[in-house]
Amino acid sequence: MTNAQVIENVSRVVTCGTGAPLLGPAMRELGVLADEPCVAVRDGRVAFVGARKDLPKDFSKARRIDGEGGVLTPGLVDCHTHPAFVKARAEEFEMRVAGASYEQIAAAGGGILTSMRAVRQADDRALVFQTARNLRRLRSHGVVVAEGKSGYGLNLKDELRQLRAIRDAGEQADMHTVRTCLAAHSIPAEYRGVAGGKDAYLQLVIDEILPQVVAEGLAERADIFADREAAFDLAQLQRFCEAARNLGLRITVHADQLREDGGGEIAAKYHADSADHLEYLDPAGTDMMRAHGTSAVLLPGSTYVLKMDRWADGRFLVDQGLNVALATDFNPGSSPVCNPAFVMNLAVMYCGLTAAEALAAFTANAAHALRLPPGEYGVIAMGSRAAFALWDVDDEREIAYYAGSNLCEVITCPGWRS
Amino acid sequence: MTNAQVIENVSRVVTCGTGAPLLGPAMRELGVLADEPCVAVRDGRVAFVGARKDLPKDFSKARRIDGEGGVLTPGLVDCHTHPAFVKARAEEFEMRVAGASYEQIAAAGGGILTSMRAVRQADDRALVFQTARNLRRLRSHGVVVAEGKSGYGLNLKDELRQLRAIRDAGEQADMHTVRTCLAAHSIPAEYRGVAGGKDAYLQLVIDEILPQVVAEGLAERADIFADREAAFDLAQLQRFCEAARNLGLRITVHADQLREDGGGEIAAKYHADSADHLEYLDPAGTDMMRAHGTSAVLLPGSTYVLKMDRWADGRFLVDQGLNVALATDFNPGSSPVCNPAFVMNLAVMYCGLTAAEALAAFTANAAHALRLPPGEYGVIAMGSRAAFALWDVDDEREIAYYAGSNLCEVITCPGWRS
Repeated sequence: MTNAQVIENVSRVVTCGTGAPLLGPAMRELGVLADEPCVAVRDGRVAFVGARKDLPKDFSKARRIDGEGGVLTPGLVDCHTHPAFVKARAEEFEMRVAGASYEQIAAAGGGILTSMRAVRQADDRALVFQTARNLRRLRSHGVVVAEGKSGYGLNLKDELRQLRAIRDAGEQADMHTVRTCLAAHSIPAEYRGVAGGKDAYLQLVIDEILPQVVAEGLAERADIFADREAAFDLAQLQRFCEAARNLGLRITVHADQLREDGGGEIAAKYHADSADHLEYLDPAGTDMMRAHGTSAVLLPGSTYVLKMDRWADGRFLVDQGLNVALATDFNPGSSPVCNPAFVMNLAVMYCGLTAAEALAAFTANAAHALRLPPGEYGVIAMGSRAAFALWDVDDEREIAYYAGSNLCEVITCPGWRS
Repeated sequence: MTNAQVIENVSRVVTCGTGAPLLGPAMRELGVLADEPCVAVRDGRVAFVGARKDLPKDFSKARRIDGEGGVLTPGLVDCHTHPAFVKARAEEFEMRVAGASYEQIAAAGGGILTSMRAVRQADDRALVFQTARNLRRLRSHGVVVAEGKSGYGLNLKDELRQLRAIRDAGEQADMHTVRTCLAAHSIPAEYRGVAGGKDAYLQLVIDEILPQVVAEGLAERADIFADREAAFDLAQLQRFCEAARNLGLRITVHADQLREDGGGEIAAKYHADSADHLEYLDPAGTDMMRAHGTSAVLLPGSTYVLKMDRWADGRFLVDQGLNVALATDFNPGSSPVCNPAFVMNLAVMYCGLTAAEALAAFTANAAHALRLPPGEYGVIAMGSRAAFALWDVDDEREIAYYAGSNLCEVITCPGWRS
């Protein structure tokens, strides 16, 4: 066994179940081994999880990895990020603090359009370099699977460049990526101030960008910012979902973030993987999402950064039995947050989750929100990928408790991504 | 030159002045070198700061340290922490989220008394181990100088043990520590429910604990939690300050955190190094603190964790010309926060500081709040200590912007602490 490893000297192994999403009360039952546990790996897959004394003898010569007494969890799954940005927007952070709203900044040509200009101006090398840097920032906080959206290109050429950059940067950063085309993120400058410009740009997305993305195999999902004022209205959302479905793309939607808008309900109607944000999701949308198996992805990092006075009601959504996941929404404007532990802290403080639920929401449930193969990611089980997060804490509930701090390192074993 | 190093390939060197505290508008002028800057070190002290092309030739054989294009700042100074704790209090975190107040938890025998029991029960080895772990947690987020308070012993023996643990843990964690006796942190269980118990315990602190701390040279400062309901009232504060002053101890005070209480004003009257927290500091206290050179140390991590609706008014205090510093208040109850960058983010979002001011508040101004020798810590200047924070950002204002994330590593050179 030349490619075998044993992770030992950990105080607890938190398995996060067996691969199925953790719904309702199951979200608090994380499957913890605390009696001198260890994990053995062969060829990048978990081959044993259990007590040290029960480790099969054929691992006796495997390489030892010292867990230094920490808590071992699955490597985190970040199911909503915008990593293909090339420049921070720290100046907008201070503008917002001084009183400008997200929508005011966007209306003034800032916000997403600032990132768009920077992406369009960057050459491929710079774009991949910065994207890999962003993925490494996530990885240094425990993430091993990152969904990555385009959405700062906003034309055919630059949307494709972003998706290729996410693909290539994932290789460089040793990150498994799930790519999503978010060409319908906003309206590019060249379509603004023109009668029917929004519809015309959406038609470009539908007729040219999404088909080319599919032709080149650059993304498996399509995303849209549904908001009748800030971006696309419900009729446009439906056209988009129809088109994406016809192209064989799976769907996810930025929904019900800034007002009760109905996006979550439409997303569910089209059997979207997930509807995300959901600060203003209404009961009809909740029912429809549960009925159609659409996951609820909460992004409290952006709620915090935007200083919104309304948080997604995670407690209600868990109690209603939806698959509830958390993600960083890492992006240079509304959520310059690359620390899942901080997002978990916010979810406990403001969305009504418990610390255990918050961890489930960043592992098993996030993997399900991305429709990853059951049992491979977000879980420590026989056959799962050998990508772990090791935490310098005494109990997994402390991950959310050490607020805004990073006590995590990633452990991966050779072959985990192949 | 066998003990010489050059830190190169950094995009910016942020000097944070020349060693004096940065007051008023000066707090935004951090002294940035951005034209291929480098820093050279000899025997643990900075020996050159400037452009690469001007580096003296005698550093040509010095060891090179690659800054990887990051931003170099002084290593951070955390001027208010409680690192000598042995156990997290994650269960109280969830209680508070469910609605229990800090004071309710304390009244039920939780809070500080929970940490007290754990410290008293821990043997010396465990106490030093956990304290060093906590200092390493701070160090991994950029801190090289940590003030450390006792205050979980609450009797002679265990207060002394805590201070020794901070001293020894600082050696283990390669952290410069400033030790403060906080025996007057709370009232131990054995003095509660007894008529005059609070005064009796304070007398023990004054008559036995502080004198022994001085005799053994275990701390240079004395601290007290001034709050007429939760801890000690103004008359008791004055008795404490008199006693500390007579023993030659410098003074710092937990003041005006939970209500307008007048602690900041009394602290200033006794020429305290600092008054800390200050959510409810009134104008009279502000004036007195400025007049007497008492620093204002803001701890927004605890304001956040306690979900208080009132934040210290950092903007006002800076504009009034006080020396304003920030600190983590790292402790297992009200501020399980070991990330200065998160505290800086909170200070910008809720206390009215700019990102540049927040960095000044964790470097030059924090060093002054601790009365460290001018020009040695919290600054990069000729003769300053060779302890730096290297940030994976493009501009120092991004440190506060990447909310709740840790993009920092510490660089120290041999001999920096001697």
